[in-house]
This record gives sequence, structure tokens and C-alpha cells, in this order.
Amino acid sequence: MIDPQKKMRPIWPDEKSGLVQVIDQRQLPHQLEALTLHTVADVIMAIQEMVVRGAPLIGVTAAWGVYVALTEYGAKPEDDEAFAAACTAIRAARPTAVNLMWAVDRMQKHVLAVKGASNRIVAAREAAAVITEEEVDNCRLIGRHGSGLIQDISKQKEGRPVNILTHCNAGWLACVEYGTATAPIYNAFKQGLNLHVWVDETRPLNQGARLTAWELGQQGVPHTVITDNAGGHLMQHGQVDLVIVGTDRTTHTGDVANKIGTYLKALAAYDNNVPFYVALPSSTFDWELTDGIRQIPIETRDPDEVRCVRGLHDQNLIDVLIAPKNSPGGNYAFDVTPARLVTGFITERGICAANKESIGELFPEKCSRHSS
Amino acid sequence: MIDPQKKMRPIWPDEKSGLVQVIDQRQLPHQLEALTLHTVADVIMAIQEMVVRGAPLIGVTAAWGVYVALTEYGAKPEDDEAFAAACTAIRAARPTAVNLMWAVDRMQKHVLAVKGASNRIVAAREAAAVITEEEVDNCRLIGRHGSGLIQDISKQKEGRPVNILTHCNAGWLACVEYGTATAPIYNAFKQGLNLHVWVDETRPLNQGARLTAWELGQQGVPHTVITDNAGGHLMQHGQVDLVIVGTDRTTHTGDVANKIGTYLKALAAYDNNVPFYVALPSSTFDWELTDGIRQIPIETRDPDEVRCVRGLHDQNLIDVLIAPKNSPGGNYAFDVTPARLVTGFITERGICAANKESIGELFPEKCSRHSS
Repeated sequence: MIDPQKKMRPIWPDEKSGLVQVIDQRQLPHQLEALTLHTVADVIMAIQEMVVRGAPLIGVTAAWGVYVALTEYGAKPEDDEAFAAACTAIRAARPTAVNLMWAVDRMQKHVLAVKGASNRIVAAREAAAVITEEEVDNCRLIGRHGSGLIQDISKQKEGRPVNILTHCNAGWLACVEYGTATAPIYNAFKQGLNLHVWVDETRPLNQGARLTAWELGQQGVPHTVITDNAGGHLMQHGQVDLVIVGTDRTTHTGDVANKIGTYLKALAAYDNNVPFYVALPSSTFDWELTDGIRQIPIETRDPDEVRCVRGLHDQNLIDVLIAPKNSPGGNYAFDVTPARLVTGFITERGICAANKESIGELFPEKCSRHSS
Repeated sequence: MIDPQKKMRPIWPDEKSGLVQVIDQRQLPHQLEALTLHTVADVIMAIQEMVVRGAPLIGVTAAWGVYVALTEYGAKPEDDEAFAAACTAIRAARPTAVNLMWAVDRMQKHVLAVKGASNRIVAAREAAAVITEEEVDNCRLIGRHGSGLIQDISKQKEGRPVNILTHCNAGWLACVEYGTATAPIYNAFKQGLNLHVWVDETRPLNQGARLTAWELGQQGVPHTVITDNAGGHLMQHGQVDLVIVGTDRTTHTGDVANKIGTYLKALAAYDNNVPFYVALPSSTFDWELTDGIRQIPIETRDPDEVRCVRGLHDQNLIDVLIAPKNSPGGNYAFDVTPARLVTGFITERGICAANKESIGELFPEKCSRHSS
């Protein structure tokens, strides 16, 4: 059991054993428990079964997974083939979040450049820690840049609560600290701004109702859990001032893959002139793809995630079947919001518009590599 | 227990006792049980607790409720005050579905025009039966008119499956027979057309996953249960040919109040050039209101319907808590889709466009009364 009073991260190397530990997010908000990732199989299971989830955390977990792979499959040159196979397996654990591929590639390249088995293990551990801290820094900066948007609205509303809608969980549980979409919210809340968050429950796995609501509650941020169906109605009635979501992969042309249903909220925001922002560290940009709807692979998952719901009953976490037992389910994990519906991106380097030129101005070193 | 092999209606007067019986829809799809409405309090509970739901069925239940009121509070002129109070209470059971007000007003007017206590009771029973059969006829005609839309798409697709998306339950369980949104589907399916239905689960009470999926499964209609979040993604990828939904109240200017989330599907349909039809009997038109978003009252319900989910576990129907126990929930039952997003209405008199003129051409006797 984790002590909820202590400052938490969703992933950490155990101080004594050095083993990689994660919060088992499947049990939240009802149980706060840690799980140890001993093997590559554990790492892959944790990513696939959504013990850990959220693009930045998937990336960080994959980075630690490469370290686990090295300890499991050996760090000598003769072990390289097994190590490479393990990295490939981690890389393929889930298809949509580009941070996964990014982190594995970066770690693998880093490790293979080091000579000597024990040096490699040390290098892998250090590199995973560097990636972890980079993501913390990125989220902190996203918070700093994004909170200005909330401040501006707060001024316009003369201190009346700023209503922010978010979908899924792009909080510290999805990252390491601060979160992406939540970082501006936490930052603004700490500054004493009057705000309130509409939390989309985010079916099928309810990361909003389970994780975002839990995070916000822990920090004392006023919030209300709503169904995924409700956001459009709230926007029609002036109850949403700002939408901020995270993303699992964003093309450098501005198309945003995020949790299924994000596109519907973006349409409603556009229809009601509500600003729609996407918060992301640059590790979530895909610098290759140009057409999100056609090119980003969308994961389909077990239909029973749709047919059933997990929750607490008599102090036990159980699954209940909601659909007829013979009715099939379809489970699409993500959708793509086209750039035309996105007001802007909140990144670690600042805010930019959702197009290639504006993204390229913030990240010239990335875009120049790929300009044709 | 109801015999699932017998032809079912969601409401019927018992053959022997004459007592009003309904299917308890809260228990579906896992249990098929009848409930008897002995008193006006039973009728109001059944409507409020969604033992019965769906605009046409709420109207029909209210009609039978007026009959129950007469038997409970007396049918003599000296009982008129108590009877009127009971009717007012039924009328106020839920705010959004206009069929409720329509049916109570019609029944009350009819009954009060009859002299003699026993004559009144007979008249009420007959009038409730007439309203019931009118709704059956309306749905049958909606099916006939609407199936042509599916036929046309089937021809264009040269027999490949026509994919229809529907939200909530606008099936026979929401009406009496055939349904509104489902009537064209059942009709086309009986004609042997190749079709498949995407069933939005429809949180918070999952009328799609529970009721529409059950209905379609009983009839052998191919279907897949999806989250409310998924429709936009499916439309982006050409997986939806047609959307058909029901409505709880539609202004004669074409604005559609329906289950929360309908507006989001209408936006996605519009964005992807997918035809978006609303099927309704004329009892669901509101001939007074002109601005659905500003004027139609939207019911808010118990937040625990959002915070919890009901389903089957070990053969028992139980509620599980999905959100943190201290996180508040917001429960908006309906939203309004503006006329500009609606391709057309499928009514008992045919199909028309979503504007005052086109609706008025089909129902001239209604519109002329209210033309200014």
C-alpha cells in the first residue's frame, strides 16, 4: 500500500532494490497500490493492461522498460539480439502513443553507444531517469505557459469561476508530475484563481471519473464528474470557458490523436466558440506523419471493456455486465481531432497554433529535419 | 416473470384484473419483469424512476395514469378537484418529454366531457387504449416511411451492409410497438436488407447498451455496442451511413431535444456528411416553442446515476461506484440539437425537412393554429 500522504509519482525506482515500481492505476480511485515490474513481460503487461497509461507515462515506463530489458536479457554485446528483441516487443506494446516508440528508440541508441556490460546498465538507469525528469520539467513548463490562458479568462469573468472541461486523464498519473492538461489547472489553482473542472468520465475505462476526479480531489480542486455525453450541452449554455485535453500523438501538422471522444468535444467547442487547447510535451509530436485521420494507427481493445464496467461494491472492485450477454461490443481507444478544430497547443516551449508553421517555429530543430 | 416468447408491449392492461402493467425497464436486459401500477403514486414513480421511459411511452403511460387517477380519486363531479390534482402531478413527473403533457391534457379534456362516474371510467380506459393504438400506428407508419432511406443507401452500396448509428433507445420499449428510430430499421430488416446497427451505450443509464441492444438481439438484427465516445471516429472512417435517433420534444421550428449526447452525434454527422434523421410521432412536436436550446426545459437527475453504473454480477443486478466517493457528479438528461444539424424528420405522415415550413406542410392543422 502506498502512503497517500507522501508525494507520489506513478513510476519510480525503489530506493533499496532499484526495482521499477508503478501505481496500479486499474485499482484507482478505490485502491492505491504499487506493482513491481520485474521483467519485460511485466513492463509490456503494465502498458497493455493499462496499469500505466497516458502518452508521457507510457514513454517513461518504456524507458524504464529498456533498463529492465538490459538487466533481464544481459548487457554484453553477445546479448544484443535478445535485448533488441525485448526493445521491439516493448515498442509494440500499444500502437497509438508515439512517446512509446520515441522513448525506446532513444534509450536503445543511448545504451548501444556505451561499452561494457555494467556501464550499459548504469547508463540505462541514468537515461531513464533523465527522460523521467525531462517529462517532469516539460509538464512544469506546460503548466506555466497554460495557466496564462486561465488567468486571462478569469480576468474577463472578473473572478467568477473559470469552467474548464477535460476529457480522459492527462494529469500527473498520465505523466510523472503536474500532468499535461492538468498542469495549467494546478498552476492556476495554486495562484488562487477561482476555477472549476468538468471531468468527462471517459468510457470505456473511465479514466476521467476514476483518475482525473481523484487527482483533482486530492488537491482540493473543485470539479464535477459528467458523462461523456454532457459537454456539448454545457457548452451550449455557456458553462464551459475552456477545454484542455492531452494527446497520445499529434502530427507536426496539428492533427491530434487522443482518447476516443475527444473529437466530439472539439466539434462542440468549435460550434460554441469555446477555446480548445491540447497540452503536450514535444515527445508526443510525430514529426513524420502529416494526416492524422488517415495515418495514425488507432488501437482497438477488448470489447468487454465496453460491455462491462468496473467499480466498487461492498468495498470490492468488481466488473458488472451492462449489455446483453450475447451483444457484441466495439472498442476503439482513440480518435483524431483535425487541426482545424484545435485553438492551440500548450507545449514546454510555449503556446502555438495547430499548424505546421507555428509548431515549426517553436521546434525548428525538429521540423527542419523533415522539411521537404 | 414475462414470457419472452410472447409478443410483448412495454405497457398493457391486465386481461383479468384490468390493472395497468408495465415492463420494469430498469431490470433489462438481465431480468424481464412486470410491475403493476395500482395508484397515481405508482404511475409517477414509474415515470420518474424510469421503469418506463421514452417520450411516446411516457405519453401512453400518462394516459393510463389518468385512468388510474380516476379509479383512485373517484370519477364523480365532487371528486374533480382531487382528480385534477392527480393529473397535475402526473403532468409534472418529468419536464422534457412533451408527450407527457400532451397525453394528460387530452385525457383530462376527454374525461371531463363525459357525464356519470362509471361512464367516465369507461371513457378513460377507452381513450387510453385509443392513444396507445394511435402510437402503434404512428410508429408503424414511421417505419414504412423511414425504411425507404435505408433502401436507397442499400442500393447505392450495392447490398453491402448499411451501417446505422442510433443513440439511446427509441425502440418499441420507448413506444409501444416498432419504436420510432428503430421502426425503419426493423422494417428494412424484415425486407431482407443487409444492415448493421451501431448502438451508443448512452450513459448514464445505458438505455442503448441495455435496451436497444436487447431489442435488436431479440429480433436478430446485427448490432455492435459502442461507447458514446466512438461515433465520431466511426463517421470519420466511413463506418456510418445514416444516423437515426428519437426525440423527447421537438419544436415546430425543428430543434430536437433528445437524450444527452445526441447533439454531439449530430455535430459529427454534419462534419462528415452523414445524414442525420430524427424519427417521431407528431405527439412529440411542441407547437408552441420556437427556440429549443433556450426554451426546452432540460431535466437534471440524481448525480449518483453518473457516479455509479448498474450491471450484472454473479446473476445479481448491482450498482458499482466508479468515481471517488467524494467527487460530485452532474447529471443532465437531455440536450438540444439545433435544426441546422438535422437532415430531416421521419413522421407518421412522411419525411420532412427540419424547419417550420416543411413541418407545417405535413401538419397544416397544427401549424395554422399557431401561425402569427
